[in-house]
Amino acid sequence: MRAEIVAVGTELLLGQIVNTNAQYLSRGLAELGIDVYYQTVVGDNEERLKQAIAIARGRADLIVFTGGLGPTMDDLTRDALAAYLGRGIEMHEPTLAKIEDMFSGRSAELIEINRRQAMLVAGATPLRNDTGLAVGNALTADGTHYLLLPGPPREMKPMFDNDGSAWLREKLGLADALHSVVLKFAGIGESALEELYIDLIRAQTDPTLATYAKEGEVALRVSTKAADAEAAARRMGPALQEIRSRGERYLYAEQDVGLETEVVRLLTEQRRTVALAESCTGGMVAAMLTTVPGSADAFLGGVVSYSNGVKRQLLGVPEALLEGEGAPGAVSEETARAMAEGALKAAGSDLAVSITGVAGPAASEGKPVGLVYLGIAQRGQPARAEKLQLSGDREGIRIRASKRALYLLWLTLTGRG
Amino acid sequence: MRAEIVAVGTELLLGQIVNTNAQYLSRGLAELGIDVYYQTVVGDNEERLKQAIAIARGRADLIVFTGGLGPTMDDLTRDALAAYLGRGIEMHEPTLAKIEDMFSGRSAELIEINRRQAMLVAGATPLRNDTGLAVGNALTADGTHYLLLPGPPREMKPMFDNDGSAWLREKLGLADALHSVVLKFAGIGESALEELYIDLIRAQTDPTLATYAKEGEVALRVSTKAADAEAAARRMGPALQEIRSRGERYLYAEQDVGLETEVVRLLTEQRRTVALAESCTGGMVAAMLTTVPGSADAFLGGVVSYSNGVKRQLLGVPEALLEGEGAPGAVSEETARAMAEGALKAAGSDLAVSITGVAGPAASEGKPVGLVYLGIAQRGQPARAEKLQLSGDREGIRIRASKRALYLLWLTLTGRG
Repeated sequence: MRAEIVAVGTELLLGQIVNTNAQYLSRGLAELGIDVYYQTVVGDNEERLKQAIAIARGRADLIVFTGGLGPTMDDLTRDALAAYLGRGIEMHEPTLAKIEDMFSGRSAELIEINRRQAMLVAGATPLRNDTGLAVGNALTADGTHYLLLPGPPREMKPMFDNDGSAWLREKLGLADALHSVVLKFAGIGESALEELYIDLIRAQTDPTLATYAKEGEVALRVSTKAADAEAAARRMGPALQEIRSRGERYLYAEQDVGLETEVVRLLTEQRRTVALAESCTGGMVAAMLTTVPGSADAFLGGVVSYSNGVKRQLLGVPEALLEGEGAPGAVSEETARAMAEGALKAAGSDLAVSITGVAGPAASEGKPVGLVYLGIAQRGQPARAEKLQLSGDREGIRIRASKRALYLLWLTLTGRG
Repeated sequence: MRAEIVAVGTELLLGQIVNTNAQYLSRGLAELGIDVYYQTVVGDNEERLKQAIAIARGRADLIVFTGGLGPTMDDLTRDALAAYLGRGIEMHEPTLAKIEDMFSGRSAELIEINRRQAMLVAGATPLRNDTGLAVGNALTADGTHYLLLPGPPREMKPMFDNDGSAWLREKLGLADALHSVVLKFAGIGESALEELYIDLIRAQTDPTLATYAKEGEVALRVSTKAADAEAAARRMGPALQEIRSRGERYLYAEQDVGLETEVVRLLTEQRRTVALAESCTGGMVAAMLTTVPGSADAFLGGVVSYSNGVKRQLLGVPEALLEGEGAPGAVSEETARAMAEGALKAAGSDLAVSITGVAGPAASEGKPVGLVYLGIAQRGQPARAEKLQLSGDREGIRIRASKRALYLLWLTLTGRG
């Protein structure tokens, strides 16, 4: 079963709105075990819409349209498909009654305009619209299945989830659906992750493996088609086992959560608290941790020590480390350790992490852009520090340094550090 | 000139990510006066990618690809286009040098994997990638123009805006281009902004006016088509004059910059410094200010006082304000003022801003979600505070509170406060 999604609307081609419908439908179809091979966007133009239908007809068994079922003259999807298939249009009386009821007492012209929303391609099964007026269409012609859904997401989504999915399940006799596990990694880049699993990726058939990256975090999706979750777990088991054992040092979650969420969860579970001392990341690590609801129990606070004055005053970093002949300077292992110790003491926390580095765009203290030191202090232990050389622009370096600070905390909390 | 956007990536077809690139490129092409007729999404599959190229070739004069230029085996765009056009692949030496430099000292295999990102379709013009490794491609073959851009938005956007647009302008000899001025506003919502200018928006023909909103900031875009910037400025002049005089309290920039950039610019210009004390925003305001290169001269640092202990210890907020019978509590006007004063003193800055509130998801101290107090202290003056009741989810409240704190600083720095 090869599917294509055709979104209809000039506003998409002008970039006025983003095509979130394609994402929603792709995910929904994947969950039904239907492979989407193409997504197409075409404007409100009958000729080009018919050409898009002809192309989709040649390369897909199921075409899911969204958009172009509304009341206005540029809502063309239903008419264009009917014309393409050589079918007529028929009135769906229950929808018409709903429209007449809704506009009762208003102008006859208004009712006339809205009648269009009650029309079906001749022979189509109507799909109920609980959140709007336009009726959906489902039909099969010459072996191709067609689903016509409205454009507004709040009408499209429930229609697809209810009548649309039900029609597909019945019509296609669906059994196997796609099951996926998302594995999240930190402390490793996408290409190094691929290198780690290159043999598995090269040999993949079932389950399939795919890597993808967001700033400072990478994910590996393992997928299989199976009748139910239990069968899927059985089929994915050996691959997951191998991935876990090789990636132990980087694999922090088996679901799509951010590293900050996992760090807050571990701190809360272990009843430990953390404080931060941030220089080049300028509060970014704190902002990440505090996105997590309930982080107040685990994160006591921190200092953004952008100036040397604040490093001395609030973190107690000795003057001799920061300035003067032979001082290691603000961006150094020594200062990273002193910052972490200072934050630990000031906040009275169990752990503290510090970040000091050169985010750019220019070098600082004669040190290169991308040089970053992380410090970690634990109550009753001497502080440690590590050195990183990160690449990218200012924002990229700051994000990567922040994620590496969270990674250092994760290593420590899991006893891998 | 008919254009088609082809986004390449199985993650799009699986609905794992939304195709924001298509929107960005559609808008960018519209601004260049180029009509987008179709958007297509195809997976990481060479055969289907070639078919998509063949179809696009038959209905468009310009094909803009995004995605599939990365280092991994499923990054196929460059190879598929070269194969379709019957051309070879050539190495772009400057990019290769950048890659070798970046991975120097790492494994030979890692460098080998990443070499792919330095390759060009034979004869293509390289497009610089300032935020990543993969080099872009621009070429014309048999009368069709091709642009190959990376998939990650933070690489794709600057490449399109810089080398990509420049290549298109030159290659297509674009004359009347769209000229726009983006006016940025803070401290006012999108609908209130629309109300302020409703007569101008209703009467618009040339120039046109459009409002749009990002979290906590709104923009008004004023556009006209003209041969050059001077003619455009003449045509937009009277409307801009009227907009400026009505929006004086909210209009902070006449270019698309964030409020934090303007605040840092003003601080630097006035040779003043600021410190922060953040509770519910958890470091977000500091992270925003420090995105601005050069912010270190104006922003001395701050305290993320997530716990009452840190509020007392680092900011000197009196115990009596925070806890006990009849205490106003951590979320109060009194505490906001004390936090601002404490930050001013600790950092030795000219100004300090504080934020304390309930970001949710649950109420706190019996105070409702969305209640936020901002404080501002200036050396030698008593601190002031203001109360906000913000709406939205946890993240929305945090972002809006952060932007309001920057707005308060802006009002003070411009003497409008």
